[in-house]
Amino acid sequence: MDSVLDEHMPVRDEEGDFRSEFLHAVEAALEAEDIAEVRALTGDLHEGDLADLLELLKPEERDQLITQLGHEFNPAALSELDESVRDQLLATLPAEVVADALQQLDTDDAVYLLEDLAEEDRNAILDQLPRLDQLTLKKSLEYPEDSAGRIMRTEVISVPPFWSVGQTIDFMRESEDLPERFEEIFVVDPAFHLIGSVALNRLLRSKRHVNIEDITDHELRPIQADSDQEDVAREFERYNLSSAPVVDPDNRLIGVITADDVVEVVQEEAEEDILRLAGVAPSTGISNSVWGTTRQRFAWLLVNLVTAILASFVISMFDATIQQMVALAVLMPIVASMGGNAGTQTMTVAVRALATRDLGRVNALRVIGRETAVGLLNGLLFAVLMGLVAYVWFGRTDLGLIIAMAMVVNLVVAALAGILVPLGLNELGVDPAITSGVFVTTVTDVVGFFAFLGLAALWLL
Amino acid sequence: MDSVLDEHMPVRDEEGDFRSEFLHAVEAALEAEDIAEVRALTGDLHEGDLADLLELLKPEERDQLITQLGHEFNPAALSELDESVRDQLLATLPAEVVADALQQLDTDDAVYLLEDLAEEDRNAILDQLPRLDQLTLKKSLEYPEDSAGRIMRTEVISVPPFWSVGQTIDFMRESEDLPERFEEIFVVDPAFHLIGSVALNRLLRSKRHVNIEDITDHELRPIQADSDQEDVAREFERYNLSSAPVVDPDNRLIGVITADDVVEVVQEEAEEDILRLAGVAPSTGISNSVWGTTRQRFAWLLVNLVTAILASFVISMFDATIQQMVALAVLMPIVASMGGNAGTQTMTVAVRALATRDLGRVNALRVIGRETAVGLLNGLLFAVLMGLVAYVWFGRTDLGLIIAMAMVVNLVVAALAGILVPLGLNELGVDPAITSGVFVTTVTDVVGFFAFLGLAALWLL
Repeated sequence: MDSVLDEHMPVRDEEGDFRSEFLHAVEAALEAEDIAEVRALTGDLHEGDLADLLELLKPEERDQLITQLGHEFNPAALSELDESVRDQLLATLPAEVVADALQQLDTDDAVYLLEDLAEEDRNAILDQLPRLDQLTLKKSLEYPEDSAGRIMRTEVISVPPFWSVGQTIDFMRESEDLPERFEEIFVVDPAFHLIGSVALNRLLRSKRHVNIEDITDHELRPIQADSDQEDVAREFERYNLSSAPVVDPDNRLIGVITADDVVEVVQEEAEEDILRLAGVAPSTGISNSVWGTTRQRFAWLLVNLVTAILASFVISMFDATIQQMVALAVLMPIVASMGGNAGTQTMTVAVRALATRDLGRVNALRVIGRETAVGLLNGLLFAVLMGLVAYVWFGRTDLGLIIAMAMVVNLVVAALAGILVPLGLNELGVDPAITSGVFVTTVTDVVGFFAFLGLAALWLL
Repeated sequence: MDSVLDEHMPVRDEEGDFRSEFLHAVEAALEAEDIAEVRALTGDLHEGDLADLLELLKPEERDQLITQLGHEFNPAALSELDESVRDQLLATLPAEVVADALQQLDTDDAVYLLEDLAEEDRNAILDQLPRLDQLTLKKSLEYPEDSAGRIMRTEVISVPPFWSVGQTIDFMRESEDLPERFEEIFVVDPAFHLIGSVALNRLLRSKRHVNIEDITDHELRPIQADSDQEDVAREFERYNLSSAPVVDPDNRLIGVITADDVVEVVQEEAEEDILRLAGVAPSTGISNSVWGTTRQRFAWLLVNLVTAILASFVISMFDATIQQMVALAVLMPIVASMGGNAGTQTMTVAVRALATRDLGRVNALRVIGRETAVGLLNGLLFAVLMGLVAYVWFGRTDLGLIIAMAMVVNLVVAALAGILVPLGLNELGVDPAITSGVFVTTVTDVVGFFAFLGLAALWLL
């Protein structure tokens, strides 16, 4: 094989999709234990592409790739992996290799790698690190999961306010251990209390003799280290921040969060909400095992089975009525299904608006009124439509009237459930994304069947 | 009222929720036309808070607030508004006021404000602008909607490679029209072709006599101006970018995109997917009109009605069987509901994996196999469970066996539909988030009813 050509083999096609040809070339080289070829193909890959490659390989091939790459393996790829693949790799790689990788990463990425490991695996790796790195990482791990303290970088530059621009620039020229990219330096007092920040471009454009305090920007929005990352993301979005200092409860500077970290958080949190709304555990990625996935999906389906049985129980209360008119059995899923869909629409809007804080106590009443009005209007529209369909289909006016009434009742109830359930769960401190769906569809199923069959039973009496 | 106290009235509570007290104070001041009080309360607000306040006010109060604030109104708030509120305000504000506001904004925010306006409203506003601004904005508006060209800032600093660090710094000190925040300058040839970039901190730490070309970073990931913003966001996530230059087809530098812009894009795109999966048009925010919302939701519910009628039609094929055994009518929604939920789980995972490019041709077969296995396993588990429930409830072995078989069939079909429908739509170039749901639930409803009732009909023959 001509490895000069292969070095330039494109990893992705124009759509950004991973190319099968590239994957197969890597798999063939791994199989043949052609280390030179493996390194030629994958040694130069960006960590993001390397991580995607690892996810696409079979579990045993992943270990082979890392072993064959040796020191050419870029450890940053580890922090880009899906949780299940990451955990598999961290479990099979020797602790020294992982420790070696950690030392090459920024604190936020290192913490991200360590946080999901079992206590003993984590300690085995930490023990291999130099004392200072150990302390830094342990401290970051003390912050709650998904908090600002976990996603911040602790590498920041801070100077006292009485320094001149010249002194500051000389200090930066002489420091070797500076962060790779940063766009501002922070101004702190002797006890590290945060005073303000100076954007690098401001620093660059000031004369050397100017004092730092004269160009300090005091309009900061410091973030508490124990804030939830979702709140951090909201701050960044609401105030269009490109970076924000992180402080401890005494307002002492301990780190910085930048917009590129927040991109990951926003993606992760939105992903969680999408999956939770569909009853999927967020960690069930595309690369999980069959059995792990089955277990996680089973739990939600079981909850759904219970609510479905509840709805069936409502139907069974009217079995005599159905026996009398089988058309009822034919039409009843329509009412329930329309209610379920209308309820899901309202619920999804409400769950998202709660997450972005567009919905809160301040406008809850207005939104409830608005959603009820929408439910009533659509209920009336579909009552007319479905009433006509039933009348034409079965040639019975009474059936048309019954389904029309049931439709209005169910769409109004669906709207109310769709907005009140998430609001109520939110007040109780429960994540509405996880649990709203069960309650809303239970309500719409039960009410849908009850209204339709109940009205029919009354009418036919 | 003591306006000194009110100036410090907090806008949000500790949870980040907007405080009713603040809203009511503003509404009271607007009502009383107490301009001093209105300005004291809202004049200093950050654009993000001001936008949220505008959304919470009634339509007529919004105009009042902007009129009473006069020159103290911060136009940046306009680009933070929900689409419906923004359009309402832009329609009622005089064109000169909007033009005045636009001049104070960065190009990306100005474009964002203009892009959804009707052609004639947009031209009326553009006509009020100075010639140069007019040209810049018109050019940006020529890029397709949701493209990199629309979200980039055109304010960039670029220097030739033969300049020294000293020359560059002097140039920056003398320029008055520099962007407010930036973290890198770009290196271009005389025809503006992109050569590389220099991070500000690199510039700061280099001696004045060093040549720019010696500190230029050539490892750029330039973005084509007509790339979709979703692809841009994926690049930022995959490669952890904090900024990226935007180029035209000839590789000429025309702008820059930074991670804080991408935060908005990621949020917007995820929001769209969440809402679309639930059958809600993404522009249906919490502040839309009742009638507008009703119309948008109606469309999706109508599609759902058609599929529900299709499912009812399947049931009607078996009305004689149901007449013979009403227990079938009682149990049939369970099979359909379990299939619908299992299908939605798989579909949601697939739609998201397609969006993040974790799922593509390279691993489609493996994922299809995996999902089918999960469907089969859960189908078997629920077959046993539901078979027992039906047997205990109705005391009939045959009913238990029928529902068990139907459950296996429907959960396997649900898994297949959940993965094949999004994959197929994606191949056809249709957004799987919008349309997958209809197809998947239609398949699971029809197959669910058909399998259960069909098996029953065969058995009872």
